[in-house]
Amino acid sequence: MYFVKVYVTYKDSVLDPQGEAVKGAVHRMGYTEIEEIRIGKYFEIKVSAADRPVEEMIEEVCDKLLANVNMESYRYEISALEEV
Amino acid sequence: MYFVKVYVTYKDSVLDPQGEAVKGAVHRMGYTEIEEIRIGKYFEIKVSAADRPVEEMIEEVCDKLLANVNMESYRYEISALEEV
Repeated sequence: MYFVKVYVTYKDSVLDPQGEAVKGAVHRMGYTEIEEIRIGKYFEIKVSAADRPVEEMIEEVCDKLLANVNMESYRYEISALEEV
Repeated sequence: MYFVKVYVTYKDSVLDPQGEAVKGAVHRMGYTEIEEIRIGKYFEIKVSAADRPVEEMIEEVCDKLLANVNMESYRYEISALEEV
C-alpha cells in the first residue's frame, strides 16, 4: 500500500485569478504583508500494490486527469504505508 | 521574505464527494489499484517581513479565510526566502 500526495499548481506564466481574489480579501482584512497567493489542488491518494511501478501509474493519472498539463504543473511524493 | 505552503483538507470524518467522483473516474479509466482519493486545497503564499511572527499571521488567515475549521483541517510549512 502506498500513500501518494499530488500537488497541482498553475505554471508561473499563467495568471491565477482565484489567488488574486483571495489576496484582495486578505488585504482588505488587514494582512497587507501578504504579497502573493497562488492556489493549487492537493490530492491524497491511497494505492494498493500492483504489478507496475506506482510512479508510472501516478504520472499517467496526473497527465490524463488530475492536471491540465497545458496550464498546470504537478509534483508528487510517494510513501509506503505499513500494512495492518 | 517568507514562502508559506498551506494544505487544507477535509477532516477524516467528513465525506469528500469530489474525491469519490474522481476515484470513480480513475476506476473507469482502468486504474483500479487506486483505493481512495481525497481532494484538498493548496496555497503558496509569499509574505514580506513584518513586526509579528509569520506563524501567528498565517494561522489567523487560515482560521478566518482559507479553511472552514468546522469541516477542514490545515497544516503549513514556512521557509525563509533569500532577498534578492
